[in-house]
Amino acid sequence: MEKRARVLIDCEDAKGLVYKISKIFYDRGLNIDNNREFVDKEHGRFFMRTVVSGVFDLEELLEELKTVTPADAHIRVIEPKDKKIILMATKESHALGDILIRHADGELGAEIACVIANHDDLERLVRRFDIPFFHIPADGMSREEHEGYIMKLINELEFDYIVLAKYMRILTPTFVRAYEQKIINIHHSFLPAFIGANPYKQAFDRGVKIIGATAHYVTNDLDEGPIIAQDVIPVNHRFSWKDMQRAGRDGEKIVLSRALALVLQDRVFVNGNKTVIF
Amino acid sequence: MEKRARVLIDCEDAKGLVYKISKIFYDRGLNIDNNREFVDKEHGRFFMRTVVSGVFDLEELLEELKTVTPADAHIRVIEPKDKKIILMATKESHALGDILIRHADGELGAEIACVIANHDDLERLVRRFDIPFFHIPADGMSREEHEGYIMKLINELEFDYIVLAKYMRILTPTFVRAYEQKIINIHHSFLPAFIGANPYKQAFDRGVKIIGATAHYVTNDLDEGPIIAQDVIPVNHRFSWKDMQRAGRDGEKIVLSRALALVLQDRVFVNGNKTVIF
Amino acid sequence: MEKRARVLIDCEDAKGLVYKISKIFYDRGLNIDNNREFVDKEHGRFFMRTVVSGVFDLEELLEELKTVTPADAHIRVIEPKDKKIILMATKESHALGDILIRHADGELGAEIACVIANHDDLERLVRRFDIPFFHIPADGMSREEHEGYIMKLINELEFDYIVLAKYMRILTPTFVRAYEQKIINIHHSFLPAFIGANPYKQAFDRGVKIIGATAHYVTNDLDEGPIIAQDVIPVNHRFSWKDMQRAGRDGEKIVLSRALALVLQDRVFVNGNKTVIF
Amino acid sequence: MEKRARVLIDCEDAKGLVYKISKIFYDRGLNIDNNREFVDKEHGRFFMRTVVSGVFDLEELLEELKTVTPADAHIRVIEPKDKKIILMATKESHALGDILIRHADGELGAEIACVIANHDDLERLVRRFDIPFFHIPADGMSREEHEGYIMKLINELEFDYIVLAKYMRILTPTFVRAYEQKIINIHHSFLPAFIGANPYKQAFDRGVKIIGATAHYVTNDLDEGPIIAQDVIPVNHRFSWKDMQRAGRDGEKIVLSRALALVLQDRVFVNGNKTVIF
Repeated sequence: MEKRARVLIDCEDAKGLVYKISKIFYDRGLNIDNNREFVDKEHGRFFMRTVVSGVFDLEELLEELKTVTPADAHIRVIEPKDKKIILMATKESHALGDILIRHADGELGAEIACVIANHDDLERLVRRFDIPFFHIPADGMSREEHEGYIMKLINELEFDYIVLAKYMRILTPTFVRAYEQKIINIHHSFLPAFIGANPYKQAFDRGVKIIGATAHYVTNDLDEGPIIAQDVIPVNHRFSWKDMQRAGRDGEKIVLSRALALVLQDRVFVNGNKTVIF
Repeated sequence: MEKRARVLIDCEDAKGLVYKISKIFYDRGLNIDNNREFVDKEHGRFFMRTVVSGVFDLEELLEELKTVTPADAHIRVIEPKDKKIILMATKESHALGDILIRHADGELGAEIACVIANHDDLERLVRRFDIPFFHIPADGMSREEHEGYIMKLINELEFDYIVLAKYMRILTPTFVRAYEQKIINIHHSFLPAFIGANPYKQAFDRGVKIIGATAHYVTNDLDEGPIIAQDVIPVNHRFSWKDMQRAGRDGEKIVLSRALALVLQDRVFVNGNKTVIF
Repeated sequence: MEKRARVLIDCEDAKGLVYKISKIFYDRGLNIDNNREFVDKEHGRFFMRTVVSGVFDLEELLEELKTVTPADAHIRVIEPKDKKIILMATKESHALGDILIRHADGELGAEIACVIANHDDLERLVRRFDIPFFHIPADGMSREEHEGYIMKLINELEFDYIVLAKYMRILTPTFVRAYEQKIINIHHSFLPAFIGANPYKQAFDRGVKIIGATAHYVTNDLDEGPIIAQDVIPVNHRFSWKDMQRAGRDGEKIVLSRALALVLQDRVFVNGNKTVIF
Repeated sequence: MEKRARVLIDCEDAKGLVYKISKIFYDRGLNIDNNREFVDKEHGRFFMRTVVSGVFDLEELLEELKTVTPADAHIRVIEPKDKKIILMATKESHALGDILIRHADGELGAEIACVIANHDDLERLVRRFDIPFFHIPADGMSREEHEGYIMKLINELEFDYIVLAKYMRILTPTFVRAYEQKIINIHHSFLPAFIGANPYKQAFDRGVKIIGATAHYVTNDLDEGPIIAQDVIPVNHRFSWKDMQRAGRDGEKIVLSRALALVLQDRVFVNGNKTVIF
């Protein structure tokens, strides 16, 4: 039966990779619907994303690809289907709301397992969309204790990614390590400018003429993970920091949704502390 | 009692207007919280938007301002309060949804009287937000007949603006005239490029490297009304027209919401077929 | 001896092209330094740009590539070296000057055979850079007669591209046909908006909030040729059309220089009335 | 005799300033050709830039304005005429060249007193434009000694601003203090990201998706002075840091020239560590 799959390869660079890989597709009579590759010369790494279609077995194709790629190769052969995501938020609705609308529209390309928030402000909004909402307050708890409740909840769920849609707490190394390369965050500045708390206030105090937003994978260095997408918005001296915040929200939600779409379509490879995006 | 008001003046230009107007504010002991003015030299028109605060009577201030401005002056002295809007849509949810989320958040600065659509696809989404939804189908009707039903409905409502959030039908001159300078539209192109139907298909066929969106007042020249806001999104040869449409939607909703915010804050003056925006 | 070449292929799409082409590179022991390909599904066309290095004969490689590609294939195997360009201008110096500075800097990646202008205003500037300047006035001549003088001049020169750096005259079909896909123009608007004369005046009259510039190949449809690059600049009601012109010049020169760099690096394929850019 | 002047006022905010100032213009029968004001609420400061025309004496007008403004007011009444600038550079020609072309074109709005560089690479370019070039090498000298030679030279010249067109040395506090609010720099990053050396290398290492450029007044905090203008350029994983540098240069030169134009038109007020730009 005809099917379509995304072939995702990330390995040490070697001569003839494109040839050897495309030979496999050719010999099996597969169509290449889309093909992108990139070699990181600095680190000698090869990245490839190919969409193939035809009659084939996913597992078999994967095994054959292993025979022509270096030993360290990370290869995935996956059918395009909706991923599952968990959303985490705090009080602000714009980034979360943007995702909820896309989901309601069928445009998101993901199922939303649930929304978890450390406040209950967003409950009403989330319930409007018939999506499970869990309020896990952090008051009077250690960070570890609070995250313990969250982990207990999400470890019973199936999911591919955790999306921090303006979740305003810093995650512990334990949490981050547990979901490596699975947590996507939106930071409300043009990173690496204005790392940390209240970047709009920082931007206002610095007198910048452009503000930004950055979507990135979460690692244990605060706001230092691999960047997926960024965008900017012009401001001027008439903007208070609240005005910057208001204007910046549009950037935040669009950048997060754009990054999420890239991730959900398996277009993002993590390459050390950077990303390769096809 | 202390109050705050927006003073909006649009008149023939004349010497000393700033002086005479600011004298009135000064003599009454009013604070000027914000002040912008502009003179269109080409047409000799003066525009001013001042936010004043203090103890005063709106009506009295208006009358006094009339004594120092040219006879043709259009002056408004209004307290900042939520306007009322009617939303019109067809099938797409992104622009409408963006407004609904802002409204639910209390960020919109307007009450939504209702949503009117010529299809029922959006009913479920609108009802999630407990906002009245009216499905007024156009099938088998003349344009006039269809609009007759709409006008009957909205004429019983109080409202300041009609926002076309991807309402995909062309309005008749009768309708447009009935609500002059009250109808705001989002057009899915960088006007005046790609006027009319399916601008993304047009953009794709033309091979542009940037697509755009334009929010404007509706007049009886199709897509020719005064432009309020525009924005652009880069594309490339890999984009199908559907990809352009998908990418363009983000621009559409942001531009419409940005234009709407400007209008709701009384920052937009219509100046012939252009706008002055403070 | 080790050399490097750009392999440029443009042909009907067919199964296995990437495999067959990369096999040739592999069998000859060539390194692939860079590889991009694209399939235009709408028209069934395949485009590929590969930079290879190793020991090989250009002509031999070209011949071998012909054996695995469809009959209509347009294949070039070329060593990266400076192209030769002819610049045409009228009176404005910004676009021309930008190219001259890049050339003086060694950054342009092209030799400038000469500058041809229909006025002599730019002579002094061009001579500062020790570049031949030819003033070919058009006064009292038919378009054909004027171009006759230009063609006589340039047909004695070796060149790859003619760059219209704000050459403010429309070229005849005869001229355009003589140098097909060799003439690059900068149009001072965000095409297809404001085709024709004085686009800044048109943009001002329309009241747009963003102006643009478009670099494109010249064809016989005025301002309708394949677009290579575009960019935009925000404006507002305070801009006179002269202000727009002034602000727009920065966009014009950057867009033209960016397009020129792409063309000189053989990154641009013409695909009907569009471009594929690697 | 009819003349035109820019009235620039920067003072503590007070009630009735617009009224009192515009009264003076009105009583003298002056035309207001352009008027912008801004109140920094945070610091209680008032800024105003008015272009007036009519028959008046500059000195008299200045004195009268003093009578209605707070004691700390910094008031300038100046006729619009070309300022004088000194350019400082090192080896790169793009930012310097952009200014030279604008100057040759009569578009700059400034005379160039001379170009000073710590290397001689740019001498040939500068001499093409018949502008004095001084090569003041820094080899084997202390920073102070080197700047001593520069100061000796420029102190004999009349000038309004020193423009660092990619001058790649850090200035000493002595130098900066000597020319306070007179030195404009272009930094090749989107400040405050990537302060210090080789920001493109830093940007590459961080894996950002957008790079930028920032024009600012020089103060004694490295890259921390008041920002005048910023712009950004999208990049992706295919960019080496050299590619980023190349792409970034376009941003650098445009941002510097844009900032310079604003400064030369007296549109920039320094407000603590920020700018107010009319």
